[in-house]
Amino acid sequence: MVMTAPTYDDVVRAHERIGGHAHRTPVLTSRLTDAELGGHYFFKAENFQRMGAFKFRGAFNALSRLTPAQRRAGVVAYSSGNHAQAVALSARLLDVPATIVMPHDAPASKLAATKGYGADVVSYDRYDADPEEITRALSAARGLAFVPPYDHPDIVAGQGTAARELFEEAGELDALFVPLGGGGLLAGTLLAAQALAPRCAVYGVEPEAGNDGQLSVRRGEIVRIDTPQTIADGAQTQHLGAYTFPVIRDRVEEVLTASDAQLADCMRWFASRMKTVVEPTGCLGLAAARERSAELRGRRVGVIISGGNVDLDRYAQLLAAPR
Amino acid sequence: MVMTAPTYDDVVRAHERIGGHAHRTPVLTSRLTDAELGGHYFFKAENFQRMGAFKFRGAFNALSRLTPAQRRAGVVAYSSGNHAQAVALSARLLDVPATIVMPHDAPASKLAATKGYGADVVSYDRYDADPEEITRALSAARGLAFVPPYDHPDIVAGQGTAARELFEEAGELDALFVPLGGGGLLAGTLLAAQALAPRCAVYGVEPEAGNDGQLSVRRGEIVRIDTPQTIADGAQTQHLGAYTFPVIRDRVEEVLTASDAQLADCMRWFASRMKTVVEPTGCLGLAAARERSAELRGRRVGVIISGGNVDLDRYAQLLAAPR
Repeated sequence: MVMTAPTYDDVVRAHERIGGHAHRTPVLTSRLTDAELGGHYFFKAENFQRMGAFKFRGAFNALSRLTPAQRRAGVVAYSSGNHAQAVALSARLLDVPATIVMPHDAPASKLAATKGYGADVVSYDRYDADPEEITRALSAARGLAFVPPYDHPDIVAGQGTAARELFEEAGELDALFVPLGGGGLLAGTLLAAQALAPRCAVYGVEPEAGNDGQLSVRRGEIVRIDTPQTIADGAQTQHLGAYTFPVIRDRVEEVLTASDAQLADCMRWFASRMKTVVEPTGCLGLAAARERSAELRGRRVGVIISGGNVDLDRYAQLLAAPR
Repeated sequence: MVMTAPTYDDVVRAHERIGGHAHRTPVLTSRLTDAELGGHYFFKAENFQRMGAFKFRGAFNALSRLTPAQRRAGVVAYSSGNHAQAVALSARLLDVPATIVMPHDAPASKLAATKGYGADVVSYDRYDADPEEITRALSAARGLAFVPPYDHPDIVAGQGTAARELFEEAGELDALFVPLGGGGLLAGTLLAAQALAPRCAVYGVEPEAGNDGQLSVRRGEIVRIDTPQTIADGAQTQHLGAYTFPVIRDRVEEVLTASDAQLADCMRWFASRMKTVVEPTGCLGLAAARERSAELRGRRVGVIISGGNVDLDRYAQLLAAPR
């Protein structure tokens, strides 16, 4: 099947499909944060999305487009966690059988939630096996539709609905900081931004340990890296995708990075200043924005909080770490 | 000065005064929570209130009613933390000098925030000295207006605005669970409930270690106890007040209690299911509602989250505690 590159029209249609299923998450503001950072900050809180992350948007959109025969046969997906839950929940809501390939060290909370939504879970070693290979093999052997975590026009279009809501609610923004793993959220955001906020500088932010996106944009081609070791388990991707890379290459202002220490510090910031639980990956946007707060003084700045799924024991460790 | 008992009209007037200053906090709902508890739950999230707790409502209302001479002279208050921050912030906004009497073991975050709002802080030993005595002495010696933490019609009326917003947004409720310390929030809530939701059963919930409210309602008179040792530092009060007790005695459905272990478990619940940071005192309502979830099956249940101010190190300890 030949698929065409996703456009803003696809984002609009995805928004219609997920309406009534996905939450329209709140845009959080905080006078304390504005005062401390010296700008006007708007946080799109996808940690309040169903299953706790933006991933539900893309997964539900993709599953909504399956044919009746595909729905009966079922779907298969691989994920470090949030896409797993997203596909599992979407599948349950649409009455589709789901098989999810998850790394052996996925956070226990994400594993439990995926199983809780009724999916079959298949484990693999994150630092050894290639999950996409396993997933494609399962897809072929069992006749299951493959729902990729990011590199599919329906996934990209679904993820773009979060930014659409943010621009609708916050109005014009000077800058927007978006977590970057495989690029589904960033590419979708860029489509929404081009249509709704063409003057907004959109930044992708990835973990320092895995800056393949930054390298890819600089070199003009997809750069592949080993699975990075970072607390941002939602952004441990090895490369951008055939659909996400061109959008990012053409439209992103810049790809920035954040260290694990910065991410942990932002988790503490969100907990103490904004009373909200954000997973490490969800802190990428704020980490980069704080780093640039001097040049953003007085500006209207958007930050996408991608999710809030983190094991409580791990969360407690990170909150208690020395400042 | 003779003051009359607070009424719902006072709540309405307080609401006008605090409008544009206090946040209209969100009412949180969670399909996951509803599914697990088997009812329809509405959480009034005062942890998102300015300075992180409902206390801002009463304090700002009380300070708004000072005469110009009183404003020039300044105010004095005592508090384990949240009332301190509430008076300090209200005073700053209204350009009134503030002196706050705080216990030696107040959470560092509350102490820092109070000083951050520009207040002078005077310390005392929580288990030894009587803060009200110290505060009244300062009031007399320095000509400062005393802003009591709960036992004043303006405080009660201000706190009642949270429940008013909850009823406006959630509609009819079968039951409502409210944290109980000195009774300002509960009494205000009861005034709002009588006017807006007369069939709603309103419960006060206090720490097991300090059930003076429960004893007071049972005996029909204010019972005084020693300062209770509990993680619910916002409800370590020794007795209800002359204004709060009659309202509670006449209108509360029942006063319930929650153990520290239950409160810690609810902190984990709020973090994992609802991605929100709630201080121990703010968990009192949910702790009691969970205890009664069987009889609340299918009902519409309100829960007031009173605040979210907790030291991160302490919070991390409580999140990591064995389940």
